[in-house]
Amino acid sequence: MKNKFSSFIDDLQKIITDACEKIDGKSKFKKTHWKRNEGGGGMTMVIENGNVFEKGGVNISKVYGKLPEIMAEQLKLNDVEFFACGLSLVLHPKNPMAPTVHANFRYFETYKDDLLIDQWFGGGMDLTPYYLFEKDAIHFHEVCKQVCDRHDENFYKTYKQKCDEYFWNSHREEARGIGGLFFDYCRPNKKMSINDWFLYISDLGNSFLDSYVTIIERRKNLPYSPENKKWQEIRRGRYVEFNLLHDKGTLFGLKTNGRIESIFISLPPKVQWVYDFNPKKNSEEQMLIDVLKSPIKWV
Amino acid sequence: MKNKFSSFIDDLQKIITDACEKIDGKSKFKKTHWKRNEGGGGMTMVIENGNVFEKGGVNISKVYGKLPEIMAEQLKLNDVEFFACGLSLVLHPKNPMAPTVHANFRYFETYKDDLLIDQWFGGGMDLTPYYLFEKDAIHFHEVCKQVCDRHDENFYKTYKQKCDEYFWNSHREEARGIGGLFFDYCRPNKKMSINDWFLYISDLGNSFLDSYVTIIERRKNLPYSPENKKWQEIRRGRYVEFNLLHDKGTLFGLKTNGRIESIFISLPPKVQWVYDFNPKKNSEEQMLIDVLKSPIKWV
Repeated sequence: MKNKFSSFIDDLQKIITDACEKIDGKSKFKKTHWKRNEGGGGMTMVIENGNVFEKGGVNISKVYGKLPEIMAEQLKLNDVEFFACGLSLVLHPKNPMAPTVHANFRYFETYKDDLLIDQWFGGGMDLTPYYLFEKDAIHFHEVCKQVCDRHDENFYKTYKQKCDEYFWNSHREEARGIGGLFFDYCRPNKKMSINDWFLYISDLGNSFLDSYVTIIERRKNLPYSPENKKWQEIRRGRYVEFNLLHDKGTLFGLKTNGRIESIFISLPPKVQWVYDFNPKKNSEEQMLIDVLKSPIKWV
Repeated sequence: MKNKFSSFIDDLQKIITDACEKIDGKSKFKKTHWKRNEGGGGMTMVIENGNVFEKGGVNISKVYGKLPEIMAEQLKLNDVEFFACGLSLVLHPKNPMAPTVHANFRYFETYKDDLLIDQWFGGGMDLTPYYLFEKDAIHFHEVCKQVCDRHDENFYKTYKQKCDEYFWNSHREEARGIGGLFFDYCRPNKKMSINDWFLYISDLGNSFLDSYVTIIERRKNLPYSPENKKWQEIRRGRYVEFNLLHDKGTLFGLKTNGRIESIFISLPPKVQWVYDFNPKKNSEEQMLIDVLKSPIKWV
């Protein structure tokens, strides 16, 4: 499974970055291979200053070795080795009418005395608009639901809710975005073998472009004002707050001594913190906030 | 002591904000009173879009009530009430040649069954330049040392080192800035009564303007290029990383349900995250990094 999933994410990285370069039409992804002292490494692919993408990363990491102590405590395990690999992507479009998207597909194994003792998948994808187009939110969630329904009719409801719970900026009492799917610790069970989980997550990975390309094509050339751009940069501040205060993926990267520049590729290119900025009543900006305060059932 | 220190910081807030408005010559501080549901509140004073200060906050908070659980665990205390008050300031100048400054002066009490069981002071001040002028670093540290030496000849060495240790961006293996002073849990002991500590911290508070005004006056009108500004905004990203990943003051604010907009006033106005940005060899930007990698003895 390790090799199977590993080669799946390698292919997916190529497919997604090729598609993004085509959409962008100007910038190309810059590749960086990196090694982790304790074992493993990754391949970071970054696009910057494009026509469409102001900044984006589609990163693969494959790390292994002794399970870092802080994680061992969390998982209540002693003297254990681990292997983890995943693809993680964040795309920050230039146009404030186009949403930021994040996706992650990951696989984890633990071993004791060279024997596999546990294995699970995790991941998901979610959308962070700066201006809300209901049509886009519905499209994104429909793709998520269609994938889920092909594997288990309860998945969409469960993982949509987990996504709303996870991407919650508790200190602001608002969601980071309009959600999508989030799942973790997907272990073999009576209904799903580890290969069934692989089929589910790879189906989702292969559907990522369907979910996002339609939206970015609709929004990438819309006109916008400096005020729209300012609003985008302020909202990107919330993105930073979530990733540095709450995101477990970021903390996992830091705890496992991952490559900082690869971990922080998720951080938006230009960000503003304006004191006590409040959108006007009934404005489009306020409508977004209202939706983020109480997550919506999109499909 | 509660009332004495409380009224000291009220006066200091006025003195510092008056001085900053004079230096700025354009923007005025905006005042916001806020209340904390669980007890207490604060007075936030914010300056934005000035001639000199792009953003700054000089905030007072006075909060009390039941000690929040997470803190009770940390301090190994059960069923305890607390009172905390302090002045916290951050000034982010527009000119990249001028450094950001941070200072904090705070007092803490805990009670059990209405009886005072513990009391301490904490605080300090530190400087974060984007371009290094040794003269400025030396001046700032000299003021710090002079204050310390008036109270105990060991203070400067001890608290300078604590500052270097505290404002350490461990994930980057570099200091946030060029340091200053940091102290905490300053309790009455054989050498220092609680009033001696008050005299020390109020001396430092009263010296803040001496330490910073000289520097900002020297740098506020220096010419700079768009590249200098970009570098400042990238370095401000490190400031955000420290405050959201490592700073205990920020976490204390969040844990005690402080006012978000007051806590986050420390976050810089405009910030950039550029992938894998590395200054040129022997550039002024690289010289700064070199100093941040291994803190220097300035006086």
